[in-house]
Amino acid sequence: MRIRTKVLAVAALSALMATSAAAGTPRDAVRAWRKAHEKEIVADFSALLSLPNVATTLSDVEKNADYISGLLQKRGFKTQLLRAQPGTPPSVLGELKTPGAKRTVVFYAHYDGQPVGQQGWLTSPFQPTMRTALPDAKTVDWQGAAGPLDPDWRLYARSAGDDKGSIQVMLSALDALKAAGIKPSVNIKVLYEGEEEQGSAHFAELVGKNLALLKGDLLIMGDGPMHQSGKQQINFGNRGITSFEATVYGPLKPLHDGHYGSWAPSPTVMLASLIMSLRDETGHILIPGFYDDVTPVSEADKAALAALPDVESDLKKALGLGRNIGGPRLADGYLQPTLNVRAIHAGDTGPQAANAIATEGRLSVDFRLAPGETPAKVKELTEAYLTAQGWFIVRDTPDLATRLAHPKILRLDWEEGGSIATKTPMDGPAADAVAASIGRTVGYPVLKLPIVGASSGMADIVNQLKVPMVGVSIANYDDNQHAMNENLRLGNLWDGIEVYAGLVSDLKW
Amino acid sequence: MRIRTKVLAVAALSALMATSAAAGTPRDAVRAWRKAHEKEIVADFSALLSLPNVATTLSDVEKNADYISGLLQKRGFKTQLLRAQPGTPPSVLGELKTPGAKRTVVFYAHYDGQPVGQQGWLTSPFQPTMRTALPDAKTVDWQGAAGPLDPDWRLYARSAGDDKGSIQVMLSALDALKAAGIKPSVNIKVLYEGEEEQGSAHFAELVGKNLALLKGDLLIMGDGPMHQSGKQQINFGNRGITSFEATVYGPLKPLHDGHYGSWAPSPTVMLASLIMSLRDETGHILIPGFYDDVTPVSEADKAALAALPDVESDLKKALGLGRNIGGPRLADGYLQPTLNVRAIHAGDTGPQAANAIATEGRLSVDFRLAPGETPAKVKELTEAYLTAQGWFIVRDTPDLATRLAHPKILRLDWEEGGSIATKTPMDGPAADAVAASIGRTVGYPVLKLPIVGASSGMADIVNQLKVPMVGVSIANYDDNQHAMNENLRLGNLWDGIEVYAGLVSDLKW
Repeated sequence: MRIRTKVLAVAALSALMATSAAAGTPRDAVRAWRKAHEKEIVADFSALLSLPNVATTLSDVEKNADYISGLLQKRGFKTQLLRAQPGTPPSVLGELKTPGAKRTVVFYAHYDGQPVGQQGWLTSPFQPTMRTALPDAKTVDWQGAAGPLDPDWRLYARSAGDDKGSIQVMLSALDALKAAGIKPSVNIKVLYEGEEEQGSAHFAELVGKNLALLKGDLLIMGDGPMHQSGKQQINFGNRGITSFEATVYGPLKPLHDGHYGSWAPSPTVMLASLIMSLRDETGHILIPGFYDDVTPVSEADKAALAALPDVESDLKKALGLGRNIGGPRLADGYLQPTLNVRAIHAGDTGPQAANAIATEGRLSVDFRLAPGETPAKVKELTEAYLTAQGWFIVRDTPDLATRLAHPKILRLDWEEGGSIATKTPMDGPAADAVAASIGRTVGYPVLKLPIVGASSGMADIVNQLKVPMVGVSIANYDDNQHAMNENLRLGNLWDGIEVYAGLVSDLKW
Repeated sequence: MRIRTKVLAVAALSALMATSAAAGTPRDAVRAWRKAHEKEIVADFSALLSLPNVATTLSDVEKNADYISGLLQKRGFKTQLLRAQPGTPPSVLGELKTPGAKRTVVFYAHYDGQPVGQQGWLTSPFQPTMRTALPDAKTVDWQGAAGPLDPDWRLYARSAGDDKGSIQVMLSALDALKAAGIKPSVNIKVLYEGEEEQGSAHFAELVGKNLALLKGDLLIMGDGPMHQSGKQQINFGNRGITSFEATVYGPLKPLHDGHYGSWAPSPTVMLASLIMSLRDETGHILIPGFYDDVTPVSEADKAALAALPDVESDLKKALGLGRNIGGPRLADGYLQPTLNVRAIHAGDTGPQAANAIATEGRLSVDFRLAPGETPAKVKELTEAYLTAQGWFIVRDTPDLATRLAHPKILRLDWEEGGSIATKTPMDGPAADAVAASIGRTVGYPVLKLPIVGASSGMADIVNQLKVPMVGVSIANYDDNQHAMNENLRLGNLWDGIEVYAGLVSDLKW
């Protein structure tokens, strides 16, 4: 697929450029150490990935926290486990002071992972497996391989890209710097969260209770994939999120659709009508007032978006898309809200299909919120609109009296909490320092993305810590995060180690 | 539930009226015999229902055919198995000549059944189980019961209502008449089909190859449920049917909907848009020209529909519906086409739900065809419309080049064959004789339904046999046909025996 060829071309070019641009950075020393220790790094990473870490299994999450604490202690960190409340998932706080350093940088990542029940895992999600480049993805005996490991090989495991990779590159960067005799230039705090994939329900409270411990001058958010071009990028926030599951109701029991189809309301059609009343095919949201709170896009943000390299035509080819919706550029929609219909289900298909009117239908929706919007206001606008459309909104399965009293009943189950968008300034000394450090490491100007399309609960954290935040991602964009066959490309692991080595030893402001 | 109370009231009333109207019919003799043999009848029916008969398992279908042939032979029938081709499901033909009879009546039913994989069967579908009236549905030891069996008890098993019940009432009616020394007044042919629930793919061919054997003066079609009022009804046809499964395509792999939701087309939304382009919420079909071929409803049919008793408000209560679509009367839509969206599925829900754009979405649709329409024309109109709407229609999973060349791709898999509607005249000597015979048995004027909403392949049969056809149903309307917990109410079984005894010994034209 051409997208991969382009990534390779960019990678080769940047390697070439980097060779001539690395003066003054630890990059060459780090690279030399990495080349001599590739198998050890992969072995360490595999050990970390082999620990089951599905966010909903607290006992597994705790084992990861203890294991990561041990890894940090070996590198000289003082560690402790922070919790919002007893019985909630721990975050690992590690602190490594640098004598004489003026600045303290807090590095965020999360060590918990998404569920693993998806169909189609090539190998077990907690048996990390090396595979050749796509589309072959054949298993490789990397331990027995002679010479350097192919940077296009990928290590497959849950959380390889999201987000244990960010933890591994920090650990390996410190190992490389120590071997090269290069000291960090800043005080380092790591804050590794354990409930991100459960929606960070307790994370803001955890941070709020530990503000003194978490004090710093800069927050580096190490989550999410890199730019599709393969170029290193930094970002300055995430969209917010809120979501609901909806249920519509037909007859109390399935009805033969020959006898009743022209008379009994059909949940399948109700779902379709509901969706088309919420958004159109281009993605425009039809709820009145939905865009009123959206912060207008600044000229600086427009310029930054316009400066991103073109990836769209290659992406379409890689994804088999004959068109796109919204604006022509992928990132054009990131400063706007999006209504995603994640799933719709009603009725039987396949061998058990019956000519029947289903008893109910279900819909799963998430809203990605632009800066300026809040989950509470979105819920209010949505429910007011749906009520005006004739829906009677309930919170539980309606009883018979309710069913008979209301022609159109909609059960809405909103996700607890949700989050607003995070948006920090693209300029300022700390942000400039991050961009400059990464630029020195990779040898080209880092891409600046005003905001990423995905969501996180970082807004509450940034607001409480009152620090600039910069997002630094190291995972390949096609790492299958949240899905089956999650993976991290080895070349991204290598590059990430160099970037993080720069961030702890070559950050100047 | 009030609907049941009403059924009971009607049944009680009709029993009362029948007592005074039975003069000259075999009804009282048949009833007396039935009262003395209730447990034997139920035991015989249970034995018939305990034979697995899912239409897709040919070996099971064959065992049913052999068993039913034996039951017929015991009653003096000459039997043979008819097949369209070697290896296709057999129909059982049984012939019982009546010396001196001028008329031959062909009784149709089918002995195969729907799949049984539905969730929620109270007991195994092939272990017939007696249960008390709804909503309790508690198991009953009917074999140990003292006195008459409660007519509101129901026997639960696949095909109890659809359609082995029609076979049992014929067998028991003949037993009752024989015991009473009453001879049939017509030559009887029974034609029991074995692939109705597979769509009768070979049945028209089977009939066409055996026209001489199947010659008769009247075809009585013994399938489908009774009127919701609990009154005996006869019908004069079925709607036709054609159906398709549709697949729409998103990205080749699931995409994080935060990063890609505003740019990548979503299969969930495509499905919703597709549905709302095909029909509106009231059931009106939006395909241009779709109603052009529909035969206008005659004044006689309008009058017959208007004469049906009101069941709608009780039905809504029983089904938990706060509204209906289409016309106010259930049967008003039966002479019009209906587009049913049987199922829609895309994306994950529940614990494995991901914030992802699905790779594809699926839709299952059937059209119930009014008199005048054909499956071929419906397919043509539908595909022309969808093409005009921008869909590129394919027959297989599209390859990458196809995906890239067409913005909107729709895979359509049409059901083989389908059928046109069957519609025979509501008057004429044979039809009048059937109505009169049933009227004498039940003691009130039988309801006349111009057409039933469901479909069958009988049009081809009627056209080939060139005989009047009348549909006579005996199953309770709420027999859960095609679903879990299919059942036949005992009172319906008793009434059906009397109706069939009348049809073979008291049919005069």
